[in-house]
Parts: sequence; structure tokens; C-alpha cells
Amino acid sequence: MADPFQSIAGSVTAPEGFLAAGVECGIKPAGLGKGSSGKPDLALIVSEVPAAVAGTFTTNQVCAAPVKISARRARRGTAQAVIVNSGNANACTGTRGLRDAEAMTELVADELLMPVEDVLVASTGRIGIPLPMRKVEAGIHEAVGRLHHTTDSSHEAARAIMTSDTRPKEVAVELMLGNKKVRIGGICKGAGMIQPGMSLTGRRPALHATMLCFLTTDAAIRPKALRQLLGSAVARSFNRITVDGDMSTNDTVLLLANGLAGNREITGADSAPGRKFAKALDHVALELAKKIVLDGEGAARFVTVRLEGARNDRDADTAARTVANSQLVKTSWCGGDPNWGRIMDALGYSTAKIVEEKIDIGYSLPGSRDLKYIVRQGSPTRTALKTLGRITKKDAFDLHINLNLGPGSAIVYSSDLTEKYVTFNRGE
Amino acid sequence: MADPFQSIAGSVTAPEGFLAAGVECGIKPAGLGKGSSGKPDLALIVSEVPAAVAGTFTTNQVCAAPVKISARRARRGTAQAVIVNSGNANACTGTRGLRDAEAMTELVADELLMPVEDVLVASTGRIGIPLPMRKVEAGIHEAVGRLHHTTDSSHEAARAIMTSDTRPKEVAVELMLGNKKVRIGGICKGAGMIQPGMSLTGRRPALHATMLCFLTTDAAIRPKALRQLLGSAVARSFNRITVDGDMSTNDTVLLLANGLAGNREITGADSAPGRKFAKALDHVALELAKKIVLDGEGAARFVTVRLEGARNDRDADTAARTVANSQLVKTSWCGGDPNWGRIMDALGYSTAKIVEEKIDIGYSLPGSRDLKYIVRQGSPTRTALKTLGRITKKDAFDLHINLNLGPGSAIVYSSDLTEKYVTFNRGE
Repeated sequence: MADPFQSIAGSVTAPEGFLAAGVECGIKPAGLGKGSSGKPDLALIVSEVPAAVAGTFTTNQVCAAPVKISARRARRGTAQAVIVNSGNANACTGTRGLRDAEAMTELVADELLMPVEDVLVASTGRIGIPLPMRKVEAGIHEAVGRLHHTTDSSHEAARAIMTSDTRPKEVAVELMLGNKKVRIGGICKGAGMIQPGMSLTGRRPALHATMLCFLTTDAAIRPKALRQLLGSAVARSFNRITVDGDMSTNDTVLLLANGLAGNREITGADSAPGRKFAKALDHVALELAKKIVLDGEGAARFVTVRLEGARNDRDADTAARTVANSQLVKTSWCGGDPNWGRIMDALGYSTAKIVEEKIDIGYSLPGSRDLKYIVRQGSPTRTALKTLGRITKKDAFDLHINLNLGPGSAIVYSSDLTEKYVTFNRGE
Repeated sequence: MADPFQSIAGSVTAPEGFLAAGVECGIKPAGLGKGSSGKPDLALIVSEVPAAVAGTFTTNQVCAAPVKISARRARRGTAQAVIVNSGNANACTGTRGLRDAEAMTELVADELLMPVEDVLVASTGRIGIPLPMRKVEAGIHEAVGRLHHTTDSSHEAARAIMTSDTRPKEVAVELMLGNKKVRIGGICKGAGMIQPGMSLTGRRPALHATMLCFLTTDAAIRPKALRQLLGSAVARSFNRITVDGDMSTNDTVLLLANGLAGNREITGADSAPGRKFAKALDHVALELAKKIVLDGEGAARFVTVRLEGARNDRDADTAARTVANSQLVKTSWCGGDPNWGRIMDALGYSTAKIVEEKIDIGYSLPGSRDLKYIVRQGSPTRTALKTLGRITKKDAFDLHINLNLGPGSAIVYSSDLTEKYVTFNRGE
């Protein structure tokens, strides 16, 4: 069956009534010499009318000032604008950081004549440095003047939230709800400090960069349903990726739904239109999440870890993450090496229950049914390393692990660990 | 007060009545061309008389054949010989692996005319490849012929257990128990897949290389006391190190005590001579453990993470390990960068309880009281990065973290993550 939606151009401004802008205000440090980096570092996304909102936020105990403010405001269920800066995380900045984050939202509210509580804020970048508020203030003024409902403006916003990302990340889809055309769009950024573990409630999910994602839709959706839809989409996408196993202080996903598509309001996530919308939203979130892994710092390969047969889903998640975060496993992927010994080792020290003699391990190309086993029942198969190397030397491949103990399963999207990652992050 | 022991030359053959040998039998794969690597790969350690024995073993659920055999035999409390090979871990080798490990001990027992149950076995190297038993058999025969009670022979044994280690690791000390001179010696190997979590019982310690360590002493110690002494020494040394956070399938520490020093038998770890012996044993184990970190794969810096003020010791251990294993923190150490934001981030996502506003972070040179704070009560201090860099650009430094929440404390010995580690392990 075909997907009940189709991909379209653009991102956050694809839905009706959403405007965006991205500007450069000098937050990002310049390289040599004085002045700014010349890279855009401030994005603004605005709905023409107040929108329903839902957000998921990092469960890191050290959480940045903008996260504290946006989490509180998002719980109210209504918002109209999101102001985002890159280059500075506004984390570990104490009361000054809270004042600065609050001031960012006040500046937007004043310019756009909306209640300050309807403005959310997000930041990404270096930790522990106060924001240059005079620059931010000028930037916000400029961004308001550049707000447009165009594909270009959403692209500018996508570029303005980047840090170590090498490219902007945008997705949009269109679907029919009843006889109304509905759109969902999103932008995100990632690159390093990436193993989000976000929650709607602040309670940590079963498990555990900064990744930021801003989603918009013109569908009419009741806030409670919107929260359910977003929570479910994040659980299947952003909370399933890992670049380096480090969960950031700033991870944030926001979804604004302004209702301008004119569909009959979705009141429950489990209704027929709710399920149809969920499919499209899940797609957008997963595509954006994958783009983060593909653009992970120094990453050369995209590996989907498909774990089955665990005692339960929690064990499956633990085992899959232990493999996906093992320094030795990630390093072997860098070399295109199907090294199963390190995978067995990581499964063995994970806190998930395993029985060595029951484990199957195999590789396939993404989506291919041609799975080549390298381990069956805990012992190596006769499949030649050369055959496996034809898979694991590709830019993307799937690792299949079956513990053969129960019904639990999990998927984790991961990347390899390369010399480039170290060089990029050693900070000399 | 001076330590109640002094360092002496040699290692496993320093105590009375211990013989050792290290030979090359062709287990390690050659580089180019045919034949063996020319590197020693088989070590034999023998006591002239049956000895009390204690052992700690990996708690990895995937555990190698030699671990299974040695753990069972060590529980009997008596042993007389240890046969060790490098280059092949004999892990994930099924029933054939168990037969091979058993056969190694039989060959030794036959040559030395001792009960097979008194021979222990350990392996380190690649996972999932059957041992070349004909080569091993010839090697054991040769090793028996080369057994000597000399410093050279212990040095040969120390070299024969190396894998990616760049140098042999040996320590020996001498102490007086009553009017008797007692000696403790040890050899070990490490390098990669290093975050041991060993246990005397098979139950996993509160937390989590292959690291192998063989300790000998001529002290007379009752097996039960010996187990307590070893358990305590390992908890403070090998179980406190991490190179890459990967716990191996083969980690093993064995301690043989043959009583030939003629001291009055130590019957309890808490007796006065027991405590005196413990100090010396702890020293030997910690020195050997530190040598493993110093020689970690690609490691350029040795970092001692000193965590205090946690709610309890378990939280302290969790927090210290989360920091010490964070890919981003380890990478910043590689660049000599005192990056505290990544440390705060790692503390925040650890499962230990923390309160951002209470955290102090500082650096010092090893053992120095001149602690330079970079974070006080969750906020950066005014200490210049240049001042801190004078510490963190050294080969070794201490990271001090105080959570200021309670009495829990922990120390973890760690290394940085370098491009060299990746290059070494990518396996192309």
C-alpha cells in the first residue's frame, strides 16, 4: 500500500500560515581575527495565528535555560513563535542564562505583539558562556523584518540552527484529511553530543547532542492529541538515534499545529484521521532523525541496528544501544569490518539478558531481504568475510541481531566512530 | 608513615618457589607472508609446591572457555600452574573451545606430573577462532623446558601475554611478616577492550579489555583469606580502570600463594598480618592496573577521575564512569582541553543524582594539592583556560568533581580517546 502522504518541497513554511527567517547576528565565534563567523545563527518561526503546541525535551539533569522555559510554556498547549540561536547553548549559565532566555522571548513578543508566554526558545552551541544579548537583540529585530512564508525563508532558518552540521536538514509532506489538504514540515540540526532521551513529562524514557527539531503543521489538532502524536513520533525517531552516546543538555523537539488547513479537528491520536496524521508525522520525524545520524560528526557510515528476540522491548533497547555505543564496535564499522567478536562482547556486557549459544548476527544492505549471517547460535558461520565486507564497506548497512529469547525488539540508528570525529572534537 | 613494603626487581618469580617461562609457538598471526609473527605468545607460571589460589573473572555474559574452566578450578582453593596464551581469546568457540582449554591444562599437568585440576588457563586475543592446538602443544612442551626461577624468565612470561600492549608490565614488592621476608609479584596485560568488572563469585559488581593479571606470593595464606584479599585489591585497582568502556570476555586475575616464605599462615584478611599484606597487595594490583591505562590503545594522557560528594558510593562510581567513558570528554582530553561543559553534560545524563548548582569541578597535577577550580556551584570560575591548560596538556592529571550532595566517593583511572585508537581498531 502506498503511504497516505507525499513528500513536497520546503519545510517549516510548507504548512499554511507559517513564516520563518534566519539571520546572522554574530553569536558564533569568528575563526581568526575579530568579528563574527559570518554564519547565520538566529532563526525565527512564527504562526500567523496562535497554534496548539507540544514539545519533548532532554532528560539530562543539567538542562539549559531555554529548555526550562520552553518546557514550562509548552505544557500550556498554546504557542505562536519559536526563537532559536546556534553557537551558544545558554547552558550552565545560572540565573543570568534564565534571564537571557526569557529576554529573547520578550523581544520577540514585543516585536510581534503577542503574549510572551506564547513564545518558545531553544539554543545550541557551546556550554557555559553568557549570550551576547545586544547582538541577539539586533538579530531578533532583523529576523522579524525578514519573516516570510517562502521555501527560501525556511531554508534560511534551517541553516541558522546549524552548529557542526555540514548541511541543513529539512523535510515536508502533504496528506489529505477528509477533503482538506494538510501539510507537515520540519527542520532539525544535530552532529555531535547525540543520543537524545527526550520526554514530554520530564520523566526519563526507559533508556537514555544537541539535537533541535522544529515541526509545523496546518492541521487542526487538540493539544492533548498533539502531545500523544509527538511523543510517539519522537520515541520512534529522535530517541532511537545515537552518534556518540552523549545526551545533550539542550535536546528539544517542538511541534506547532495552527489549524489553518481547515480540517475537522483531530481530537484523539487513535482516531482514523489521528492515525493517518501519525503516519505522516512519524515519517517526517524519522527522516529528520536519520539526517542527523547521516551528518554525525566525522561519520562515514550509517548503521541501522535491528535487534530482535530479546526477553522484552526494554532489554532489546539496552542491548541495541550497548552495541551501537561500543567504542570498539563503532570503530570496526569505520573500517568496514563486520567484526562480530566485538558485537558478541558488547551484548555480553550489556545489562540485557543474553545466552551466548542462542545469538544470531547478520548484515544486510538497507531494506534488503538478503541477510548474510556471520554468527548462528553463538558460533561463526562459514560466510566469507569478503562476502560480508561487500555489505559493511558500503556507506549504509543494517546489522541484524536475534537473541532468540523472547518477543522484544528495538531499532537504533547509529554511525561509526572515525578519526575525523576525534580530530573535530579534541578542541586544540 | 613509610609504606610497610618496598619495591624490588622482577615480578612473578620474585617470590620463593615460583618458576616462569615465555615462548613463541606461532599462535599470533604473521603480518605479510606465511608463518608466525615471531612474537612470544605462550606463558607458563608454576609453583614448586601446591599453592592456595584465588581468582576474579569477567562478569561478561559471553565468557571465554578458559574463564569457565579456571573459575571452576579456582573455587577449589588450590592450584599449582597457570598456562596462558596470547593472540587468541578462545572465546565464542563453543564446545571445541572448552575441549581446547581443557587440553592445554592436561598437557601442562602431564608434563609437570600434577593433577589437572591444579592447572589454570587464560587466553587473550581474537574472538571466535579455534586455537591451533598442535602449535600450542609444542609450545607447552618448550615452555616446560624453559621454566626458571629468574627475573629473565618472568620478563619472558610478561612479554608472552602481550597483545596490543607496547611494553611488558611487571611489579614486585617485599615486606616482612613477623621475622619472615615475604614477596608479592605480578605481571599483567591490557591495551584495549578495557573496563573490567570482575567478581570472585560471578555476580556482577555494582558497575562494570581483555586484561589478564597473574600474581604470585610466597606468603602462607588460607584460601578464604586469600579470596577476600584479592577481591578487595581488584575492587580498588583493575575494576577501577577504563580505556574504552568495553568489558572483555576474558578478564582474569589470579593470585597464587605457596607459603614458602615460612610466615605464620594468614587466616583472616582482617588480622594484623592480613592488613599488612593487603597494603602491599593493593599496591601491586594498583600499579599494574595503572600500567594498563598508561599503555591503553592509542592513549596519550592518563586521567584520574576523583569524584566526591555523591549521595552514596554507587552513585559516585556511576557518575565517575559516565564522565570517564564519555566519548566527548575523552576526546577533549586528547586535545589537552579542560572542557567542563562536556563534563557537566555527562554528569547530567548519568543515572547518578546530581544538582547542577552544587557541582564543583577542578583539575590538578597528579598528587598535587594545588587544585584549580574551573566550575564552582555549577558556574564557571574566572580561572583562565591557559592556567588550566598548563595542567590538562600534561601526560597525566587529576580531574576533581564534587557533587556536594553526600558522602559517596569513587576513583576511576582513565585515558583519552585519540585518533590513534580509531586507526588501531578500525581493522582495515
